[in-house]
Amino acid sequence: MTIRLSPLLGELIAELERIPGLGPRSAQRAAMHLLREGRVPALRALLDKVDANLHRCPLCNTFTEKEICDVCADETRSPVHLCVVESVGDQMALDASLSWGGQYYVLDGRLNPIEGRGPEAIGMGGLFERLRKAEADGKAFQEVVVATSYTPEGDATAYYLIEALGRRWPSLHVTRLARGLPSGLEIEYTDLNTLANAVYGRRRVLRNDKTPDES
Amino acid sequence: MTIRLSPLLGELIAELERIPGLGPRSAQRAAMHLLREGRVPALRALLDKVDANLHRCPLCNTFTEKEICDVCADETRSPVHLCVVESVGDQMALDASLSWGGQYYVLDGRLNPIEGRGPEAIGMGGLFERLRKAEADGKAFQEVVVATSYTPEGDATAYYLIEALGRRWPSLHVTRLARGLPSGLEIEYTDLNTLANAVYGRRRVLRNDKTPDES
Repeated sequence: MTIRLSPLLGELIAELERIPGLGPRSAQRAAMHLLREGRVPALRALLDKVDANLHRCPLCNTFTEKEICDVCADETRSPVHLCVVESVGDQMALDASLSWGGQYYVLDGRLNPIEGRGPEAIGMGGLFERLRKAEADGKAFQEVVVATSYTPEGDATAYYLIEALGRRWPSLHVTRLARGLPSGLEIEYTDLNTLANAVYGRRRVLRNDKTPDES
Repeated sequence: MTIRLSPLLGELIAELERIPGLGPRSAQRAAMHLLREGRVPALRALLDKVDANLHRCPLCNTFTEKEICDVCADETRSPVHLCVVESVGDQMALDASLSWGGQYYVLDGRLNPIEGRGPEAIGMGGLFERLRKAEADGKAFQEVVVATSYTPEGDATAYYLIEALGRRWPSLHVTRLARGLPSGLEIEYTDLNTLANAVYGRRRVLRNDKTPDES
């Protein structure tokens, strides 16, 4: 006598549950939202368009409707500096900081051996291909910034990538983002690991009247 | 020079953001999940089927693929007892408690004047229609349980419904769920409002050898 959902509704909920951030209950609420608010036709039509028109940018691996995405097509960006990020979200955050004017390569997340996400699954093959092609075209990259976060997963991805890049291009300049104090955080409330990195990475302050070489 | 998402990807994220529980960042993650994991065709095909096959049960307002949903079609359930719930989730929870063997009517959520969700928007018209039709068919309901939660929104929905039912069917037996101590919660950690309701609603304990009328 127990109530069972309509099998089709159950299928929809199961598909929505695959979306990261939606658990069983929120997937059910999401399905109810789509049905009650009549959003099914709109989302269906949108997925039609997405399926037909969105594809990977052959240069940076992001999703775009154009042959080459807007960022890669931007000729004001340095062609010899490449920044490797884990996601479009990271790419947009870095870009909003107005501190990077080079190319990007967008990985599909980070290495996660437990979930079976190895180097190929996150798109590293495409990154190496991009570097190889640039070299073959006589426009080799001079620097690759491995812009992953300083978390265990971000570190693992960075270590793997740095090692793989070093093996293939021994003279390539490979960097990571600086570690140190975040802006706006009181030293008193900063974790010890961050503080230690801020100390190890301390930098000489330049005075107006001197360059560091003169001092 | 700021990076802009592909417009189509932006549309998809905006549509996903409408889903309750998904904010701007999780909608972006959800879109990336669909694209990276190649779930777009599967979800699209599923929404096709949903759009073509799922409709409202004419009796209880839930979503079903059949003419009448399984619960309403179940002839072992009492035809004269009706339980009004806010959602399929609430319905399934009540059903799992094995305490209700009557009919259900599933509202589309609760009254929310701020979001412009009035009685019609949550399906109360269909509920009154159901009661009217049962009466006209000579199978009038004897009891309607207004099974909303004891939260401000649940209370508001219940008050409105109780008033509207009383106006239309003055002799109908309208009830709400009992208030009191939840199972498994220590009295010490129970909020005062719940405790007060548990005291006001205290019930005579029946001993094995007596019925309450004998004592």
